[in-house]
Amino acid sequence: MKKKFSLSGMPDFHSLEMKRREYVLSVIKKHFDLYSFFPISTSLIEKRDNLFGSYGHDGDQLIFQILRSGDYLGKVGSDAINMNSNELSQIISDKALRYDLTVPFARYLAENRSLINLPFRRYEVGPVFRADRPQKGRLRQFTQCDADIIGSRSLWSEIELIHLIDTILNELQLEDIIVKISNRKILEGIFQSFSSDFTFSKFCIIIDKLDKIGLDRVGELLLDSGFSTDGVSFIKDLFTLDKSFVQIKKYIFSKIKPNDNLNIGFQELEFILDNLISKELSIELQIDFSLARGIDYYTGTILEAISISSNIGSLLGGGRYDQLTEKFNVKDISGVGISFGLDRLCLALNDAILFPSNLDEGIEYLFLNFGPVEARLALSYILKMRQLNISCELYPDEVKINKQMNYADKRGAKFVIMIGEKEIKQNKITVKNMINGDQKVLSFNELIESL
Amino acid sequence: MKKKFSLSGMPDFHSLEMKRREYVLSVIKKHFDLYSFFPISTSLIEKRDNLFGSYGHDGDQLIFQILRSGDYLGKVGSDAINMNSNELSQIISDKALRYDLTVPFARYLAENRSLINLPFRRYEVGPVFRADRPQKGRLRQFTQCDADIIGSRSLWSEIELIHLIDTILNELQLEDIIVKISNRKILEGIFQSFSSDFTFSKFCIIIDKLDKIGLDRVGELLLDSGFSTDGVSFIKDLFTLDKSFVQIKKYIFSKIKPNDNLNIGFQELEFILDNLISKELSIELQIDFSLARGIDYYTGTILEAISISSNIGSLLGGGRYDQLTEKFNVKDISGVGISFGLDRLCLALNDAILFPSNLDEGIEYLFLNFGPVEARLALSYILKMRQLNISCELYPDEVKINKQMNYADKRGAKFVIMIGEKEIKQNKITVKNMINGDQKVLSFNELIESL
Repeated sequence: MKKKFSLSGMPDFHSLEMKRREYVLSVIKKHFDLYSFFPISTSLIEKRDNLFGSYGHDGDQLIFQILRSGDYLGKVGSDAINMNSNELSQIISDKALRYDLTVPFARYLAENRSLINLPFRRYEVGPVFRADRPQKGRLRQFTQCDADIIGSRSLWSEIELIHLIDTILNELQLEDIIVKISNRKILEGIFQSFSSDFTFSKFCIIIDKLDKIGLDRVGELLLDSGFSTDGVSFIKDLFTLDKSFVQIKKYIFSKIKPNDNLNIGFQELEFILDNLISKELSIELQIDFSLARGIDYYTGTILEAISISSNIGSLLGGGRYDQLTEKFNVKDISGVGISFGLDRLCLALNDAILFPSNLDEGIEYLFLNFGPVEARLALSYILKMRQLNISCELYPDEVKINKQMNYADKRGAKFVIMIGEKEIKQNKITVKNMINGDQKVLSFNELIESL
Repeated sequence: MKKKFSLSGMPDFHSLEMKRREYVLSVIKKHFDLYSFFPISTSLIEKRDNLFGSYGHDGDQLIFQILRSGDYLGKVGSDAINMNSNELSQIISDKALRYDLTVPFARYLAENRSLINLPFRRYEVGPVFRADRPQKGRLRQFTQCDADIIGSRSLWSEIELIHLIDTILNELQLEDIIVKISNRKILEGIFQSFSSDFTFSKFCIIIDKLDKIGLDRVGELLLDSGFSTDGVSFIKDLFTLDKSFVQIKKYIFSKIKPNDNLNIGFQELEFILDNLISKELSIELQIDFSLARGIDYYTGTILEAISISSNIGSLLGGGRYDQLTEKFNVKDISGVGISFGLDRLCLALNDAILFPSNLDEGIEYLFLNFGPVEARLALSYILKMRQLNISCELYPDEVKINKQMNYADKRGAKFVIMIGEKEIKQNKITVKNMINGDQKVLSFNELIESL
């Protein structure tokens, strides 16, 4: 059996995949720029304590921890023998791989608070890591593309971000997309209306599983966790209603007593819906109270985009967070952001055959190698052509012409240039068009002038 | 005292730094493309065993190891109590962060051997990690930009790579650069001419320290390690000779008996020097037999670029490797590559004030926020302007105009647009030029036409 040297869920990208990723990134970055987000980049490794506790219990389990360097056992006392893995990790590991770009951004903001002019619009593109079980659309290393506006509670930020999502998905020509929107305060208002003996955070984690495990199982989990039977039947009714936003709102307020979370949540959601420039929107925006997002730090608006036809999970997530910088000793800074999953966007574009067809083009000119004298002349021409922005390559080895032509074919070369003994005598080059087979003998200067 | 939440040597990059890095990367990638290297990307995490043993003993110590997920102590037997950190790591860690891009490339090539047409020219840009002591020019996370030609022993590859280095440094306008070249076979030929009781790999590691610790200390280390006194005095003489290449070659062959390594090393080096198109070269190429490169896998040509005026270590390293894919069960594939250090290149450009001055430009248009009705109209204009590729931003909060203008200033906005009650009535907008203070009232269509 062939030994596998790569890790599952840790992807390599071939040349065509890279060009496709760069195409998608160029669209995303173009609009991040036009929306006047500024690029930053945070380190891939964070202090362990920066990350743990930010993503809820389930999230913490997925953080990759890095061993201390050197003799880390010197730090472990004699009580280590009674420790479990979790306890020992806190001693022998002090660093971890980032799990998302949002917590590192909060850390960055807190550390650079005096240099940053709020409100601050930043974007960041880069890999994040989760020790998850790999499957289609779920990698252990994947690339997020985040845009956040921090330092303002204004809901115009949410509105700008929804237009940004729309613009990007539109330019990528992704059509079967639903962007779901909700507000965690509404969910929290519902949660606190019923008796329970568990936390809102755990409630969200259960609700978030709805797509995967179905409504009945969600109901069971809620009951098992100590949510009231009234609450469970309300949730089940709410999530099966096929009604308009106004009707659902009426239903909620007919069944449960208004509270601050419910009132403010609805106010926020309605301000956003009312102020979107709807004639400029082409995405389908769907209000979905079952949207919970598993991540702990969201406190207001939550967003998610899914592809209807591809079964690859969400293409985008996002939301508002009010307390994220508090962990880093900076209070009262609210932010809202979105995060595109580059790998899933590429899967969706591939499934829908939406990548531009010119991305898999080969090289322009391959110069064959007929020996040291000929190769040296070829190289001097090659350097000149590259100065004119034409990509060229010298075949490195003086091997049979068949082998070199075979390479040119596989490499997708558009032209092959031959400079042999005869050409050197005549001060000419032979240019073969690999698409139609035409062959011309001309001087190098004539070739340059024809370009 | 302010608590520090970031890790030393793990850099964040602000917006201007990002734009500078992107400028340097755009130059590098442009020429990688023109030299017809194809982009690939390998995972940031490798199996632990892929990395250990590839970089020599000193290198292995600098590899960041990742803890197994879940209950890793379950895998540890009762003999763990007698283990040292190194032994325990092999059980509780199975993954590690990549140390360079070359070993992952060899792994990639071996795993995709059947899909890849040799010779294969690839480039890769991305972060690598070393658990080193941070200082200026030495980070624990830094970005390498690699171009390699693999699957050919032809020295034309070295020649192409030297021209590539020249082209890139030239376009970046870096002038005080020396590119050093040597051949490990020459060093190995010298090494084997003298008695010693240590390995050639260790010999290289000591020689590699020359710049840092000086010739006397290198001599002491060689003696201490068991290199013959004759050998040490030969090395000391060789490295202090201020002579031409031809004279140094003569000196070497006058002092020690020719062997295969010496002969082939000189043949290779001379072929490269003879066939460079020197009239196209603007870098200073310096033959330096003291160049060793600390990395274990080099077997032929070695290259290094340093900046004369900046004390930031090498800007580029590279060389030929003959056995790198053998670790991954693929034999007889020789390759040669170069690796630019992006972070150090940026330091050198910064020190020499070579970054283009337009990289720190602010945003184009900031729309002030006078309230919900006005903001909604502003947003509809903003969306139209972005469709015309003009970057705009809506100030999110309805706060005092002074505060908003102050933000516009700090943000470097070129124009501020005001749409208040008066403007709405007149169906006009007020545009303030932030550079000269001019203020104009015009219709939105007039603004668009003027752009």
